[in-house]
Formats: sequence, structure tokens, C-alpha cells
Amino acid sequence: MRHWKENIRKVAPYVPGEQPKGMDLVKLNTNENPYPPAPGVKQALKEMDYDPFRKYPDPTASDLVSALSQYYQVGEDEVFVGVGSDDVIAMAFLTFFNSELPILFPDVSYSFYKVWADLFQIPYETPVLQEDFSIRKEDYYKANGGIIFPNPNAPTGLFMPLEEIEELIAHNQNSVIIIDEAYIDFGGKSAMELTKKYENLLVVQTFSKSRSLAGIRIGYAIGHPDLIRAMNNVKYSYNSYTMNMPSLILGVEAVKDDKYFKECLDKIIKTREEAKVSLSKLGFIFPDSMTNFIFASHKERRAEDIYKALRENRIFVRYFNLPRLDNYLRITIGTEEEMRQLFAFLEVFLSN
Amino acid sequence: MRHWKENIRKVAPYVPGEQPKGMDLVKLNTNENPYPPAPGVKQALKEMDYDPFRKYPDPTASDLVSALSQYYQVGEDEVFVGVGSDDVIAMAFLTFFNSELPILFPDVSYSFYKVWADLFQIPYETPVLQEDFSIRKEDYYKANGGIIFPNPNAPTGLFMPLEEIEELIAHNQNSVIIIDEAYIDFGGKSAMELTKKYENLLVVQTFSKSRSLAGIRIGYAIGHPDLIRAMNNVKYSYNSYTMNMPSLILGVEAVKDDKYFKECLDKIIKTREEAKVSLSKLGFIFPDSMTNFIFASHKERRAEDIYKALRENRIFVRYFNLPRLDNYLRITIGTEEEMRQLFAFLEVFLSN
Repeated sequence: MRHWKENIRKVAPYVPGEQPKGMDLVKLNTNENPYPPAPGVKQALKEMDYDPFRKYPDPTASDLVSALSQYYQVGEDEVFVGVGSDDVIAMAFLTFFNSELPILFPDVSYSFYKVWADLFQIPYETPVLQEDFSIRKEDYYKANGGIIFPNPNAPTGLFMPLEEIEELIAHNQNSVIIIDEAYIDFGGKSAMELTKKYENLLVVQTFSKSRSLAGIRIGYAIGHPDLIRAMNNVKYSYNSYTMNMPSLILGVEAVKDDKYFKECLDKIIKTREEAKVSLSKLGFIFPDSMTNFIFASHKERRAEDIYKALRENRIFVRYFNLPRLDNYLRITIGTEEEMRQLFAFLEVFLSN
Repeated sequence: MRHWKENIRKVAPYVPGEQPKGMDLVKLNTNENPYPPAPGVKQALKEMDYDPFRKYPDPTASDLVSALSQYYQVGEDEVFVGVGSDDVIAMAFLTFFNSELPILFPDVSYSFYKVWADLFQIPYETPVLQEDFSIRKEDYYKANGGIIFPNPNAPTGLFMPLEEIEELIAHNQNSVIIIDEAYIDFGGKSAMELTKKYENLLVVQTFSKSRSLAGIRIGYAIGHPDLIRAMNNVKYSYNSYTMNMPSLILGVEAVKDDKYFKECLDKIIKTREEAKVSLSKLGFIFPDSMTNFIFASHKERRAEDIYKALRENRIFVRYFNLPRLDNYLRITIGTEEEMRQLFAFLEVFLSN
């Protein structure tokens, strides 16, 4: 082996979720929003001028930061923005998780945490979820280099009440705690208000799910100005200009239109609750989801078989071939029509 | 100090170049292209549909990779794309520079190399440029963990001939060598052809300068498939979806229109050569630039004074308050009209 190859960083190649192409498919596999972005996004795109693209974008992303600070009623110095919440969380790992002590996150959780920890050579431990997939907060009452978990958790969909979150934080004042709220808008209560009380709490959210802008790549974090400043210092030491002009312009529009935002959320929540009834009738069991997906297991049929049958019929759901998860399907909540197609197929398939 | 603060990564906060706002200014400070992006970019923006934004973008950026692979006549597995060349180079540092030996880059060079090395805790040495600002290739004939330099170099504008580059590479077969060709299209000869011969050579270019798309954030690297695969593995372990939909769509259009691309380059080169004559007449000296900027020092007047006077008159050039560089101005080549305004002011200012 050539000597330079020895110095290549060793990572387990991460394989992103499948993005099938084509029109005649029902895509319920990556938790995208079935409704289009806000009308203001359409309008801003129509009015966008191409000439300014020759210049660098605003490195401070001030318009977007300002829109978020107004929306959440926090200071502009309490807002960090990045290229999707993956970028935001990666920056947070790099910025805050530099202890010799292991960071902690649930064994069943967003699979990227382990990947980032490996990439940045951060030691970690993964407390095991309880039998019902809930997080046992006492598992996090030990010396650690940091804590991260999604709330609601993924792929379980389970929400942890704010009182428990606060207890967990109160027990951890020596490390940074990141709550990854990618799915919070679908019915959970954000821990954002706790950032005023706990300066070691960082709350991360995204435009990819509830705001229908996965293709534009915007994530953000809210926290104490000391946390945000430290993250910005690292970000500017990595890439000063991460957010491009279209994302800055369109992101502002998505935040502005709260009426449309809430209408879409209401529709998705309604469809989700109806889907729970339908899934139960079909013999599925599932943790009670507060997200835009349901993590379901069938009482009699193997998840992998259902997954494959759906796939052959151009209905895509997510299947994780992992211990404890390999008899579950993660089904994104689509439009009413998409869910109708899903259930129409399942009804026939499961009765055979 | 709270315990978690001790574990914050220490970086010297990088301050990005000034992005003054407003219309009535001559902006010659960040090496942007004075001409708009290709007409195809305008057209594609006009035709862009906002509905697909709710979905994730193609994580492999296949259309853009394919466009670049066709343009440069290399395999698709020899192309890596990222959010500007800063993202590409940061990924390359993280992927390849994991040796105990120091990496090497010139003392006067792109200031971000030092920042990335600090961020990722990579040891480095900075061989001193010769008196005329040229790189002495023999300074790089020693054990090292990697080599990076821009060609043409920044902020000097000096180009190193390909024969010298090849000698330097031939002497360094044990580490990865990155040639940062951000300014290569303005008259230099790319080392891209050498990637076929040397599997440890990575050539990095950007859409921010010659392709008039700084605001869209696209950079890329060309190299042996083993290098590209290693970088993609790290990239997918950091953020799978870095390139947003508008950047993927508009980037392809910028590559397609080679005629417009070359016309703009010719205009900039012509304006640069004229600027050299004007600067000489005004009493400036400068290394012979092969870029879209000129790094100039006045024989009698202090650079800082000129910089400040220009700034007061809404003409922005770049001034580096650094050892060896603090009597130079880096002047971006703008339109003919912008340069006329610059020289009209300098003529009056320098005669007083």
C-alpha cells in the first residue's frame, strides 16, 4: 500500500437513504413533507435575480438569522444556521464534544450520531432504550462529554415530555446537551424555552420536514450566545460561506408564512392520526408517534417482506436491517391520497 | 468557568472578507467575476419549479458530477463536488492529512490553510516564499504529511509552470498533494492532466471566480478514483446532502456554456493586462498576475493609506495587515468601467 493511503481517515462509508427517481411512485421513505413549500417561496423564486449570484453570499446569513430570531423571539446572537441540521449537528460535535469522557446518545436513535462520533474520533456510549422504546433519563445521570438525542426520537416517533428533558438537563451541567428537534413541529413541545434557563442547552431544528424545504438545505440551532459564538467561530474556520443565495432568500419566505405552515402541519397530523387507526386495523403495532412518520411492526408478517412487496409496487417506505429494528417499517405520512394507495395495497397484500 | 466551556474547540475566530452592501460602490475586494453568470443560468432559474424543494436533493450530485466529468474528459469517479472550494479543501484536509508529520504550505498563501490545520489539529510548516514571492519547489522535498498550495498563488497572483509542479509531485510520492486552482482559468495551465499520472494528486477548482457563481457555492476536485472515494466516504459521514437543488441545477448550466465562459475570461484577461500598464504608470509594482486580481505595492505611498482613501470613496480593494504583505493592495479585476473609476481616483489621489 502506498504510504499516503495509510493516512486516509477511516470511516464506515455512510449510505444515505434511497432517493428513487421518477413520477409514478409513492415516496414515504425519507420523511419529506407531502405539501409544497409556502407560496412566498414560489413567489421569491419567480422574482429571484441571477446577476447577484456572481458575488459571495452574506457569510453571516443575517436575513435568515433575523427571521428566525423574530419568529422564536430570541436574540440574533442565539441563532446559528447551517446546511441542514446535519451540518448544524456536525458543527456542534466538532465545537463542543472535545472531552476525554464519552458522549451519550440512545442505542436506537438517529444513525448519524455514531457516524459523526467516529469521524471526529469522539468516544461515545449508547444507553439502551427501554422495552417500549422510551428513553430512561436516569441512564444519562453520569459523567459524560456531552449528550444528544432527538425529541421526538427517531425512528421511534416517541416524544419525551419537557419536564423529563429539564430533569435530564438539570442533572447535566458539566457538558453540552443537544436536543435534536427535527420532528418537533408535528405535535411535540419544543425545549427552546429551556435555553433561557440552561446555557449548556442547544436546540436544533430543520427546514427539511415541517417547512417543506429538504431540497434547499437549512438547519438551525438556538442556544445561549456563548454556545452560538463558539459554533460560529468553528464554522468560520471551516467554510465561511456555507449558505448559498437561493437558500438565504427562500428560507426567509418559509419562516414568514406562519398560517400556511400551520395549515400543512394540521393536515399532516390529521392524516397521521387516521393512519394510526388504519394501521391498527391492519394488525400493526407501533409506538405512539408525534412525528410525520410511524414506526410500525406487523403482528404476523415480517417487516422485510412487506417492505419488499411495497417496493415492487413502487411504494417506498424505510426499512432498517438493524438489531431490534429489523421487524419495523418507518412509514412517512404522505398526502391523504398517498396513504390511501398505501393502505389499499396493504389490505390486499396482508389478506393473502 | 463552567466545565463544558473547557471542552469547546479552540480556534482563532476567522473573519471573512468584507461584503459591503449597497449599489453605489466599486467592489474589487473579493475577486468576484464582474460579468453575470451564463445566460443558461438565467434561463434555468426562470424555469425552476419550487415544488420539488420539499424533497431531498440528489446526494451524489450526479448531474453536476456528470457535467464536470464530460467537460474535463475524466471519469465520474474522478470528480468530487462540494459547497465551494473551501468545503472541498476542508474535506480533503480531514480525509488525507492524518499523519504525524507536518503538512507543508507557503507562508504567503491562502490564509485558510492555517485555519483548517488549526481546526483539525494538523501539524504544519510554512516554507518561506522567495524574495520575488515565488515558491521554491526544493523547500517541499522533505518528509511531510501532505502539501497544499494555490496555483496561481494567492494573493501574489504568480503562476508556477507545470514542469515545476510535476517535479515537486515526483519528489513527493508518500503524501497527498493538493493544487488549489481557484484562479487557473485566468491564463494558467491546469495540473489536471497530471492526475492521470500521479494518483496522490488532487486538483481543486471553483465556480466562484471564473464561472461567476460565488453566490451559489460550488467547488470541485479532480483526482484518482481512490482519492475521490475516500473523500466521498468522509463527506457522507459529515453531511450527505450538502449541495442544494438550485446549486445542482444552476451549476450544470454554468459548465455547459463554454463559449460564454471563454468570452468573459478573455474580457477579464484583457482588462487585467491594461490594468498592469495603468498601475505601472501610476508608480505601482506587482508580481506578474495570471489571476483576476493584481497584488500591487506603490513605490512611494503606503498601501494602507491608499486603501483607506479608496474606501472613503466607496471603492473597495483588499488590504492585508500582515507581515510582508502590509504594503500591498489586492485589487480584483472588475469591468472596464469599474477599473476606469479606480484609476481616475488613483490618478488624482496619488498626484496630491
